[in-house]
Amino acid sequence: MPLTAAHKSVIRLADGRELIYFDSKEGQDRGAYPDTRPLDPRPAPGESRFDPLLGEWVTVAGHRQVRPYHPGPDVCPLCPSTATRHSEIPAPDYEVAVFENRFPSLSGPPEPEELIGPLPRRLRRGGGRCEVIAFTSDHDATFASLGEDRVGLILAAWTDRTASLFALPGVEQVYVFENAGAEIGVTLSHPHGQIYAFPYLAPKMARVVERLAAHLEHTSRNLYDDVLAAELAGGRIVLENAEWVAFVPFAARWPYEAHLYPRRRVPDFTALDDAQRAAFPGAYLDLLRRFQRLFGADAPPVPYIAAWYQAPAGPPRDVALHTEVFTVRRAPGRLKYLAGTESGMGAFMNDIAPEQAAARLRAVGELTAGSRTAPRPARSAPPGLPD
Amino acid sequence: MPLTAAHKSVIRLADGRELIYFDSKEGQDRGAYPDTRPLDPRPAPGESRFDPLLGEWVTVAGHRQVRPYHPGPDVCPLCPSTATRHSEIPAPDYEVAVFENRFPSLSGPPEPEELIGPLPRRLRRGGGRCEVIAFTSDHDATFASLGEDRVGLILAAWTDRTASLFALPGVEQVYVFENAGAEIGVTLSHPHGQIYAFPYLAPKMARVVERLAAHLEHTSRNLYDDVLAAELAGGRIVLENAEWVAFVPFAARWPYEAHLYPRRRVPDFTALDDAQRAAFPGAYLDLLRRFQRLFGADAPPVPYIAAWYQAPAGPPRDVALHTEVFTVRRAPGRLKYLAGTESGMGAFMNDIAPEQAAARLRAVGELTAGSRTAPRPARSAPPGLPD
Repeated sequence: MPLTAAHKSVIRLADGRELIYFDSKEGQDRGAYPDTRPLDPRPAPGESRFDPLLGEWVTVAGHRQVRPYHPGPDVCPLCPSTATRHSEIPAPDYEVAVFENRFPSLSGPPEPEELIGPLPRRLRRGGGRCEVIAFTSDHDATFASLGEDRVGLILAAWTDRTASLFALPGVEQVYVFENAGAEIGVTLSHPHGQIYAFPYLAPKMARVVERLAAHLEHTSRNLYDDVLAAELAGGRIVLENAEWVAFVPFAARWPYEAHLYPRRRVPDFTALDDAQRAAFPGAYLDLLRRFQRLFGADAPPVPYIAAWYQAPAGPPRDVALHTEVFTVRRAPGRLKYLAGTESGMGAFMNDIAPEQAAARLRAVGELTAGSRTAPRPARSAPPGLPD
Repeated sequence: MPLTAAHKSVIRLADGRELIYFDSKEGQDRGAYPDTRPLDPRPAPGESRFDPLLGEWVTVAGHRQVRPYHPGPDVCPLCPSTATRHSEIPAPDYEVAVFENRFPSLSGPPEPEELIGPLPRRLRRGGGRCEVIAFTSDHDATFASLGEDRVGLILAAWTDRTASLFALPGVEQVYVFENAGAEIGVTLSHPHGQIYAFPYLAPKMARVVERLAAHLEHTSRNLYDDVLAAELAGGRIVLENAEWVAFVPFAARWPYEAHLYPRRRVPDFTALDDAQRAAFPGAYLDLLRRFQRLFGADAPPVPYIAAWYQAPAGPPRDVALHTEVFTVRRAPGRLKYLAGTESGMGAFMNDIAPEQAAARLRAVGELTAGSRTAPRPARSAPPGLPD
C-alpha cells in the first residue's frame, strides 16, 4: 500500500488545550470550527511519588475521580460536534484527532531535579502530558474494523506525537497505548487510544533498560535482538510479513498475548523507514482481528491492551520499538484477574501455555494482503516444553 | 488477650495431599474423618519461565483452566463435609484448616539449578507448593467478622505453615495472602486465604531485596526502618496499638491501601514474640473493618487483597514482616482497573491522594479493645504536599 500522508492542523480548545487534526486530504480548514464551550480552567498538575521500597514512581492525580464515567453516545466527548452537542472535537467530522486530556494524570512544567528531594520521600510536582487520540469519528467502530489507510494515518499521528512530545522539556518516555473494552475499565467506548509523555521512566521501562545494559555488558549483544532471533528460530510465531513479526513471548503473562516487532530494530516511531511503515497496517490489523476471533465469531468485542515500547529519551536508545497486545479474557465469559499473586507480589500465573496460545492465534488467522500466517507447523512438543 | 494455642492434626486427602487442622481445643480426633472421595491423580507440576526483558519469573499452569468457577454453597469445597456432600475437608466441622491446593500453580520437587538453562530461555519445572487456608467453617462469614480468638488461631496457622514451607527443599519465599471479593476474581466465596511457597523470589520481593541492599550500602540503615520511622513522624497513620502500626504509604498505588507493621521489625511470622502475637488480632480486625466501612454501612463486602511480605529464605533476612491491604474499589460501585499504564508499563495512577485515604480510614474507625485511632490530627497541608 502507499504511505499515508498526514496533514496536520492545530487549534486550541476553549481551556487552552491543544487539539490536532490529522487528515489524509490537504486543504481542510480545521480552524473554521472553534471550541465555543464554557470550560472550567484546567486542573492543577498532579504529582509523582517515588516508592522507596520498590523503586518505582507512582502518580497521584486526585482530580481524576470526577472524569466522565461511561457516557452514552449522546454525550460522547469523542464524537464530532453538532449544532446542539459540543464534544471535545468541534469539527462536524474528522479522521484522526489528538487532544490533551482534560483530566490528565501528568501535566504542567517539570520540576527541576534538585527540588525532587531525597528518599524516603522523593516527589515531583508536574511534568509530562497526557493526550487522547481518537482513531475515527465513528462511535461504534473498533480499531480492528478500520481500513489500512486509516491505520497508516494513525501511525503518522503516533509518529508526529512521539517527535513533538520528546521535544517537550523533561519528557523521558513517550508511551502510546490503547485500552479497549469495558472489562478493563474503559469508560469511553468511542475508539481511541492514549499517549503519555512521562517525566520519568515507567517501572517496566526502567527494568528493561537495566536488563538491556546488563545483557550488553555480559554478551556485547542487544537483548531485544537475542529475543527476536530466538523467537524466529522457535515455534511461537503468530504472523509475519516482510517487515513485521508477531509472536507469543516465551514467558507470556496473559492468557493471550502477542508482541509485534519490526524485523529491523528501531528505537521509536520516528525511525521507521518507508517499507516498515507501509507494511505495518496489514500486520497490526491482522493481529488485532485474530484476537477478536479467539472467542468465536459472535463473541462480544475482545477486551485488550496494546502497549507500545519506545526507547526513552536518553542514550543509548537500544530499546526496540514494539507493541505488546494482550487480553484479559481467558475463555468466553471468563477473565484473568490480577489478584494476590500478581497485584500483591508481581508474580504472574498464566493458565494458558504460551505455545497453546500461539497455536490458537495462528489457527484463527486469515490470509490478508499485508501478512500471512506463519508457515511453521504448530509445536508437536507438549505445551510444557519450550524450544 | 491470651495467646491462642493451636493444636495441629495432619491427615492425607484421597489423592495424597496434606490437610492440616488447627484447633483451639486439645483432643480432637481429626483422623476419624478420612477422605473417601474418588479423586483423580494430582496434576503434573507447572513450570516457571524467566522473562528475559523484565527479569521476572512467570508461572505457567495450564491445568488450572478447569478449576471450580463460582461454585454455589451446596458444592463449596471449603464447607465441612456431610454424609451426602464431600468437600475438601472431610470433618463435619472445623476451626481453621489448611490443605494443598488441588489445582496448584506451583508443586512438585524443585529442579536442580543447573537444569534451569541460560537466557533467553531460562525455565524451571516444578518446585514450590500452594496451600489453601480456610478461616472458618461458616460459608457466609468474612475475615473481618471473625473474633479475636479465631484470628489468633489463624496467626498460629500462618506461623506453622511458614516454618514448614521454609523447611521444604528449594523454597525461596513463603507468601501468605488473602483475595476477597468477586470483583478481584475470587471464585470461592467461602472465607479463605492462600499460602504460596515460591521456588523463586516473586518479582516485587526481588526488587525490595535489591532496594534494601542498595539502601544499606548507601546509608548503613535498613530501608524498612527508615520508612516506618518516617511514617510514624508523619501524617498518614491509620491506627496503632502497643505493638502494631498501620499507615497509608507515601506512594500508595491503590485508592485505599494501608500497610500494617509490627513496631519491632521481624523477618517472618515465626519471629513474632508473645506481645506482638497478642496484639495482632485487634489491630488487623480493626484495619479490615475500616476497609469495610469505607463505602457505607450497607455497602456490599469490600473487595480487597491482603499481601504478606516475609523475608526470603536466604540471608540477610532484613525484609520486614508486614501486610499490605488494599482495595480496588475507588468509590461505591466503581473499581480501579489496571489498564494500559499499570498493566502495560507498571506505572500506577492513583486518583486518591494518600493523605485523603488515610483521613478517610481514620474517620471510619471505632475504638476497639485492641487498637485505637491514631490521635494525630489530620493533615492541614494540602493533599499534594507530603511531610
